[in-house]
Order: sequence, then C-alpha cells, then structure tokens
Amino acid sequence: MSGVHPLPAARPGDPVGRIATPALVIDLDAMERNLQRMAAFARERGLRLRPHAKMHKSAHIARLQMAAGAVGVCVQKLSEAQALAAGGVDNIFISNELVDEAKLTELAQLARQIRLAVCVDSGLGVDRLAAAVRRAGCVVDVLVEIDVGQGRCGVPATAAGALAHQVVSHAPASDGPGQGGLRFAGLQAYHGRAQHLRSAAERAQAIHHAVTLARTAQATITSGGIACPLVTGAGTGSFVHEAASGVYGELQAGSYLFMDRDYADNQATPDAPVFEHALFVKSQVMSRGQSHAVVDAGHKAHAVDSGLPRVWGRALAYANGGDEHGLLSVVVTPSGAEPPLLEGLPGLGDTVWLVPGHCDPTVNLHDHYIALRGGLQHGVVEAVWPVDARGCLR
Amino acid sequence: MSGVHPLPAARPGDPVGRIATPALVIDLDAMERNLQRMAAFARERGLRLRPHAKMHKSAHIARLQMAAGAVGVCVQKLSEAQALAAGGVDNIFISNELVDEAKLTELAQLARQIRLAVCVDSGLGVDRLAAAVRRAGCVVDVLVEIDVGQGRCGVPATAAGALAHQVVSHAPASDGPGQGGLRFAGLQAYHGRAQHLRSAAERAQAIHHAVTLARTAQATITSGGIACPLVTGAGTGSFVHEAASGVYGELQAGSYLFMDRDYADNQATPDAPVFEHALFVKSQVMSRGQSHAVVDAGHKAHAVDSGLPRVWGRALAYANGGDEHGLLSVVVTPSGAEPPLLEGLPGLGDTVWLVPGHCDPTVNLHDHYIALRGGLQHGVVEAVWPVDARGCLR
Repeated sequence: MSGVHPLPAARPGDPVGRIATPALVIDLDAMERNLQRMAAFARERGLRLRPHAKMHKSAHIARLQMAAGAVGVCVQKLSEAQALAAGGVDNIFISNELVDEAKLTELAQLARQIRLAVCVDSGLGVDRLAAAVRRAGCVVDVLVEIDVGQGRCGVPATAAGALAHQVVSHAPASDGPGQGGLRFAGLQAYHGRAQHLRSAAERAQAIHHAVTLARTAQATITSGGIACPLVTGAGTGSFVHEAASGVYGELQAGSYLFMDRDYADNQATPDAPVFEHALFVKSQVMSRGQSHAVVDAGHKAHAVDSGLPRVWGRALAYANGGDEHGLLSVVVTPSGAEPPLLEGLPGLGDTVWLVPGHCDPTVNLHDHYIALRGGLQHGVVEAVWPVDARGCLR
Repeated sequence: MSGVHPLPAARPGDPVGRIATPALVIDLDAMERNLQRMAAFARERGLRLRPHAKMHKSAHIARLQMAAGAVGVCVQKLSEAQALAAGGVDNIFISNELVDEAKLTELAQLARQIRLAVCVDSGLGVDRLAAAVRRAGCVVDVLVEIDVGQGRCGVPATAAGALAHQVVSHAPASDGPGQGGLRFAGLQAYHGRAQHLRSAAERAQAIHHAVTLARTAQATITSGGIACPLVTGAGTGSFVHEAASGVYGELQAGSYLFMDRDYADNQATPDAPVFEHALFVKSQVMSRGQSHAVVDAGHKAHAVDSGLPRVWGRALAYANGGDEHGLLSVVVTPSGAEPPLLEGLPGLGDTVWLVPGHCDPTVNLHDHYIALRGGLQHGVVEAVWPVDARGCLR
C-alpha cells in the first residue's frame, strides 16, 4: 500500500494568489517562448533536437517538445522511460548505461512498445543487453558512449571502434519481425562538466576538445568499415558549439525550457538564443524577525546541489534555513536593475517567488506542476500536470 | 491524474541481492536497537519522547516509536500531519508556524480527529489560528516558539510572556464539546544550529545558552500568572544536554533512529547512547573506468545538503557525479579500521552501500523503505513500508 499522494497546490482556474505554498509553478508564457526558440535554433541548422526529459520528467511536456519538432527525448533511467512511455512518449533514448540483468529484461520489454535507444560503455553491458533483446525478440538502438571530458561514464575515444564492432556483432539476423538484436546508432558524447564553466570562452574550449575526441572516435569506427550514423550530446550551456561543430547531429539540451539560476549565472554565449526563467517555487513568509523573514520553502522544496535559489523581483538574499525553511534578508539593489526590484523585507503571509538553483532535482521533489498563464503577479492557473517520472530512480 | 507511482525496489521475502538499485534500505536490526536505546534513555529520566517524524515520514515507524513509549511525534508541515494521521498516528505536534488562512482551516479540521499541537511566533498567527479553531469548534495545543540560537523562527525569550498571554486569551470558553479554543501548552525551544557543531564541548555550550533562554521565557510567562506546562526541543546532536537541564520536559530527536553520516561525524557526547547507521542507499556499479567506478545513485537518490554519502564497508571515497551518478575512487584504509574495509575498486554490477549525508531529505526522495532483516550481506526483505509523507511540502 502506498502513502497519501500529495494533492496539487491549486486547480485550473485558480488565481495565482490561491496557489498553496510551497508549489512548483511554470510561467507558461515564458516556457513556450523558450520551447519555440530552441526548436527554431535546431530547425534552422538542420539538426535533430532530443531534449533531456530527466529535467522535466513530464510526458505532457515531452509531447509539447515533440510537437514543436523534437525527434524524441532523452532520459537517464529505465523507470523514467517507462513512466514517459506510459504517458504516450514513443521515442526515448536512455542516455546512460545499464548492466543489471533484471533491468535489461525490462528494457527489452519496453523496446517492444516504443522506439528505444540506450548507451553502452562495456563489453559486459553489450553482451547482456544483446541477450535480453534477443530473448524479447526486439530491436534496440545502441550508442557507444565516449568520455569527452566528463570523467564519468564512457570509453576513451580510441576504444569506440572496438565496442561498436561488438555492438554490430549482435545485429538482428534479418529485418523480419521477431528478430531480436542491436542496431548500432552512433556515439553519445556529452560533456557535462563544460555546461557550467562560467566564461563563454572556457565552454567553447571544452567543447572544442569534445569535438576533437568525437572525430577520433568516429574515425576508429568508420576505419573498421562500420557506419557511424550520429553523434549526440550537448547541454544548455554549450549547445551552440556542438551545433556549429559539423560533427554533432543531435542536441540533448534540456534546461533551456525552464532556465535555472545556475545556468543564468553563466556568461552568455555570443549569438545564443536567450532563455527566460520559466520555473519558480512559490513560497510564503511564515515568520518574521527584526531583520529577516522566513519562508516556508527549504531544501525539500528546491534542490541545493548547485547552490541556493534566487529571490525573484525583490532585493532579498536567500540563505539556507534547513529542510523546510528559507531565510531572507535585505540586500542592496544593483543600480539600474531592470525591472526594478521591490525593496524591503516582505511581511507575514506575503508571497515570495524563488528561482531554483538547479531545475532537474528541484522538479524531482514535486508531484505536480502548476502551469500559470498571465504572469506571476496576476496570472491564472491554466493546468496542473503531474511530474510523471518523479522519484523514478531505477 | 497523477503520474506513474514508482514501484517498490523489492518484495518481502526477496534476498538482499534482488533489491533493485538505487533503493532506500533499513537495517531493521540496527534500527530496532536505536529505537530501544532512545526509548530507554527518556524512560529512565522520566522525560517525554516525541521523535521528529519529519525525518522518517512513515506512519508505521511513528507507531513503532509510540509503542516503545513515545507520546506522539513531531512534524514540520500540516500535510505531513495529515498523511501520518491518515496512517493512524493520533498525537502530532507541528513544530512550526502557519499563518496561511486556508491551511489553518485545514489544521482545525485535523484537530477534530487527532490530538494536535502547533507553534506560534506572531500575534497575527495566534489570532488567525484562534479564529480557525473557533470556527471548527475544536481545541489545539499551542506552543510559543522562542529563538534559542537558531536565528530562524521564534520570538525572543523576553517576548514569550506577551505571546503566551495572547494565546491564553483564546482559551475555550468551557470544557464542553464543540467549544473551540487554544490550549497554551508551553514553549518550543529547539536549537538546530547546535546539532552539528562538531565538538561535544561546543554543543554543550550552545545548549547551556538555550536552557538559559528557556528559563527566561518561562519566567516571563509564569510571572504573568500563566502556567508553563512544558519546554520541548532537542535533537540527536544535543538531547543529552536538554535532558540534563531540568528545564526541558520533552525530547524531539529524530535522526537517532537512522543515524546519517553528518551526525556520525560529530565528536561523541560523553555518556550518550550510541546509535548505529540503520539507513542505507543500495547502489550498483554501472560503469568502470581505469581508476574509478560509477554507481547508479546520485543526488536524486540521496540528499547532498549536508555533504556526500560515505561508502559503507569499503575503502572508497564517493564524489559527486551529478543527479544520477556517483564516482568512486580508492582511498587508503585507515589503519585498524574495525571491521576491516574491503579494498580495491568494485567491478561492474557490484553492490555498493551508501550512508546518506542527511537522512531527512534523503528519505523524502524515495517512495518506499525496503526493510531488511539479517544484515546487508545476507539479509532478507522483511517488509516494504511507504514513505507516507514523502513530498508533503505544505
């Protein structure tokens, strides 16, 4: 038996003031502008867009992205793929490795229902995946992950050819139905560490290095007589460079849709589309001291792995108040702030909007999005969307 | 419509090896020893124990604590209280303030079903609470929170008397049924910042200061002719001192039950009961480099607000690998480690047990506890418990 599922913080039609706090709120107007800007960027360059849905974990949002031109979405976990597939998303890339046989059996079952791709970075992983896929009689797209600077998963670029060869050795015997096997689909080459290098020049340099490694890996594959159909990767901090590389054919950026504080803190990339903050935590002042106010949103309401949230529209600093509280104090308004920030400490019961430090794990703390139309001041709740893959860790 | 609810990682009767990763696992033998040690500590001193259930968010565990002698539990949020009440917990203290009128209406409804207490630290909060309670025709226990060093919520100790007076002015007109009103129940005096001061002497000094302030607050109340029935507070890092103070009558420690890495890093308090790690995240190696291994548990599987997890039983350091990954590297075993640590990097598919940095927000990331009997090596799943109040932010 499962626990009481938290109820949504509002219902469609509610004015913004009636949204219970803390709540995860989307500024729909801003989100839709972000959605279209990234779709146009990829379309104009003839690149595939496969946004990372580990960020939003929502089947509804994934479908909006695909309706705007995305070929599908990425996830990091099998259970995320299962949750999104149950919500009607039919083209999913698990941009991560699995070696667990029970999970691989489930993965193969899912591949009978949707177009599914997954990464490998070990011979053991390839063999176990191939065995599971053959048992299920299905085909899975397989991308060899190379380490382009992240220092996490992936083989060295020079080892990509050998692993691709092993993948190809498990190709389906024929194209007939029920023929299980692996379809080699290319290279996964994501440079996570590059995304938050603050200077635009450092990010450009890191991706230049990643592109060089991706070319090396491509060469080790094609020199063995295997076609390498695709190099996929890129994030919100770097996609302009992967897009310009001539090597990457698919962009995986996800955070552009909501833009968290950490990405906004990057120095802007020249000629990059501008994305707006579209995700907020609505909080309320529930205690007031002489020189501080306390809001009802702590790090159970927003993730702190990438730092604390920014207070939106007010000249206030947010300090960590623990799991359930945030501490606000007055800061000097930067001169010429546009729009001008509200001055002074808020009072008991006042609303305070927070821009999360990191959207992905913040979303994972909430069960629902409250989708607001018409802005944070006077908006109305247009929809409530479940965070379908919230808590899908496996 | 709600999202796909994650399935439990195992079923009762499964051997430990079959628990899917990442999973939140309780070592039941260790937890039960912790439970009994704290219950005995309070019982032997004639103190009330009201463990903080914001830590475990489980109605089942709350009932185990009450069966061992606890008078009830604390929570921080109304929705936590609602979830635990739905699971049969009938005595709950919301050790936090609420000023939102919609929430106060719900609080008063809940007080018709269970014995409920709540904190106040403002005149506005008292008046709104009194109005809601009177409308519902119920009685709520009210504790005036004083700031004893946390710098968060609570009035100064010298202001406690005035606020208590205001609470008493809203006492029920009579003891008859349907008579709504506030019952002044004493002082909330919790020193959160003291809990993780690393040296035992610093913690002792901080609580000495808190006790002095609690005495001052008591005096401002009793000098106004109002009885102050209780001072409540204390956490796992400090409860020995509150217990010895002669002022505190109730202990709220919660983390003792699971003992996270952050509490274990404290220098031990002399004569304090010893608590064992009883909460773990089971993870699996899903990628291997030359000099590192990658596990499938990142900060969506364990909270990082109080630092990274410790690797259990192995001479390995855990470094942040992002939302879904952890990076393991070999460290030199401290000489004389007892029991001896397993040396070397684990292989692909190997199990790695993590001791979370902070149990409260880690638990909040999971939907179920996998309750294991017989130890991490050869244990068997005895039960699966829902994290009833997971995600109950409001």
